[in-house]
Amino acid sequence: MASVNEDFLNLKNDYLFSAITERKNEFEKNNPDKKVISLGIGDVSLPLTKVVIDAMHKATDEMAKKETFRGYGVVQGYEFLIDKILEVEYQKRGVFLEKDEIFIASGSKGDLAGIAEIFSKDNRVALMNPVYPAYRDVNVMLGRDDIVYLNGTEENGFVPEIPSKHVDIIYLCSPNNPTGTVFTRKQLELWVKYAKENNAVIFFDSVYEIFIENENIPHSIYEIEGAKEVAVEFRSFSKLAGFTGVRCSFVVVPKELKLYTEFGEKVDLNSLFRRRQSVKFGAAPYITQRAAEAVYSDEGQKEIRENVKYYKENAKYIKKELEKLGFTVYGGENSPYIWLKIPKNMSSWEFFDKLLNEAGVVGTPGIGFGDAGEGFFRLTAFSSKEETKEAINRISNIFKR
Amino acid sequence: MASVNEDFLNLKNDYLFSAITERKNEFEKNNPDKKVISLGIGDVSLPLTKVVIDAMHKATDEMAKKETFRGYGVVQGYEFLIDKILEVEYQKRGVFLEKDEIFIASGSKGDLAGIAEIFSKDNRVALMNPVYPAYRDVNVMLGRDDIVYLNGTEENGFVPEIPSKHVDIIYLCSPNNPTGTVFTRKQLELWVKYAKENNAVIFFDSVYEIFIENENIPHSIYEIEGAKEVAVEFRSFSKLAGFTGVRCSFVVVPKELKLYTEFGEKVDLNSLFRRRQSVKFGAAPYITQRAAEAVYSDEGQKEIRENVKYYKENAKYIKKELEKLGFTVYGGENSPYIWLKIPKNMSSWEFFDKLLNEAGVVGTPGIGFGDAGEGFFRLTAFSSKEETKEAINRISNIFKR
Repeated sequence: MASVNEDFLNLKNDYLFSAITERKNEFEKNNPDKKVISLGIGDVSLPLTKVVIDAMHKATDEMAKKETFRGYGVVQGYEFLIDKILEVEYQKRGVFLEKDEIFIASGSKGDLAGIAEIFSKDNRVALMNPVYPAYRDVNVMLGRDDIVYLNGTEENGFVPEIPSKHVDIIYLCSPNNPTGTVFTRKQLELWVKYAKENNAVIFFDSVYEIFIENENIPHSIYEIEGAKEVAVEFRSFSKLAGFTGVRCSFVVVPKELKLYTEFGEKVDLNSLFRRRQSVKFGAAPYITQRAAEAVYSDEGQKEIRENVKYYKENAKYIKKELEKLGFTVYGGENSPYIWLKIPKNMSSWEFFDKLLNEAGVVGTPGIGFGDAGEGFFRLTAFSSKEETKEAINRISNIFKR
Repeated sequence: MASVNEDFLNLKNDYLFSAITERKNEFEKNNPDKKVISLGIGDVSLPLTKVVIDAMHKATDEMAKKETFRGYGVVQGYEFLIDKILEVEYQKRGVFLEKDEIFIASGSKGDLAGIAEIFSKDNRVALMNPVYPAYRDVNVMLGRDDIVYLNGTEENGFVPEIPSKHVDIIYLCSPNNPTGTVFTRKQLELWVKYAKENNAVIFFDSVYEIFIENENIPHSIYEIEGAKEVAVEFRSFSKLAGFTGVRCSFVVVPKELKLYTEFGEKVDLNSLFRRRQSVKFGAAPYITQRAAEAVYSDEGQKEIRENVKYYKENAKYIKKELEKLGFTVYGGENSPYIWLKIPKNMSSWEFFDKLLNEAGVVGTPGIGFGDAGEGFFRLTAFSSKEETKEAINRISNIFKR
């Protein structure tokens, strides 16, 4: 009798975004003349840049000729891309990694899930709260029920304290989704120290690092001494270069990082992940990897920074205008996310309904990111300048009264 | 202490292809003037077809403009592609599936691994032997140690008999890698009947179905009545349209298919897989899905069939010439694989060395696909016509004497 992996039955329904869509659709049905503006989804709106498009056309043409056609790729990724990543993302910041410590793939979702498989079910996991819900779901699917939540609050600036009890795996996301807050060098040093003392591993999700502007904020956890022994880093081209529909990511698995067997022997995460990828992952497409390579040309770097600047201006505008209205606002500075404190004991769903019904603006209720998100609301800077202004105007009209 | 998932330590080293490469490199170093020809790897050599290339350029241009740019895709896949698959792959063969039973993804490796996760560790798995090694590896990683091997032999034409003891999950690959043999309708009917009687599930890997020419051979397991209740089907554009470097696949998970909880309740594999994909998979790229859609245009269908014809001519040529030399040869008819019986008590590695050293031709030792592959050797039809002829000439020169 084919039986189900019962861990999957412990998954909660993916309620948040379907509930948002449902309420939005209902509103649009009842108000056919009102255009709803979404500041809810973390998807980009600017198209791919010229250098990237040119690289894709060129690679496509290579795939059309027998002499330059590329079939199965190297599972780890093409060296032409890995070399660029090593140089631009790491060496320029004084971080030296080896080629075989970088794994190119097709999106951080898959990478976060793939690495987590290699850890025993018995590891105690620490998750920030509020946080990107997929971290929790991946662990639930793997049967890990020992999850410690590290609450982000106004008091700690949404940067949780080191846990008082021992944990084995720690998910850190900086710049953070949804709170928009960032870990300083000092804070990261404490986490790396904790991980070393506890033989724990940090999963460092820094897919929003391109939004960092404050010089004190590390872009990579490997800027912290000793981090290679304890940290895996997840990076993506989705927000870096607008690749949400193209799909390219990479994960850094340093060879210094060891896991333990039940008899206390050390094993190498890097080799196990390589083996895992060779069985379960079919290499990122050639054209995609050429597109990602183009991001690292001088012109490519200039273009993506212009796009990021556009989104950051949106973020700052949202933050400034909401503060004028008397709101307390977090994030929005080294991040595309604005984390808004909801006034007067409203729930985050009530605030959602108010914004939708009175302003025709969609955001994301904080509760969707964990119970510590209640009382807050996430807005994103990824819409167009025009839509962002219009949304903020509409919100102002409600709260100015 | 971060501990390892010990199931991963039970993986055997991926010895086969690295050993082949090592011996090939050694030979080339010692014989710098001899060009080695590989009939070893299952990768295509013909470039992408014109219709596909045009679709990719067009989709790339759409990604360059704000109005037509596409960010995050639908996790299940775009409807424009799903509709074409339903029509061309299924309705034309009298199989009626629903849109939400098709999941587009980025390669069958990932699909095979993803579906297997949703089944309990305790299921007893039946694998054909010899077989594509990733089936075994995926199950080892999931901690399944109760694996039954169904041997393919000359006596049963490499189509194993129904197992005498109960199994829960059955992997069937037809046209088969590596033996090139196919399951007839009658044979598949017996398997579907077995699966129904045993509440077992069949994973039907038909990524080579485009090579089928015999009318008695089903292209889809859903051509067998009742198969929707018991079978998941894996399909890919890799061999269908030369997408090995593009990456596109789909998996069919019928809603009739149920798994059992430990208390005997039925649960729906389709919804669980959908939930799994939403957490762990970031949708196939837009451009890739447009490329796959183009395969289903009239011109696209014509083009891919021409390419397949090219490979099939290679297969038939290899088969015919080897038979002339007195070899016993399987496959090569509804398949790109030729499964050669090795003469005179040589091991498959000894035969590999003989072919490499005396003819400069690389193939794959049968033992690499499981112990039942010993005594056999796999050659593939994916090289160019010229290289294939030259390889066969060289082989003839050894064995003619």
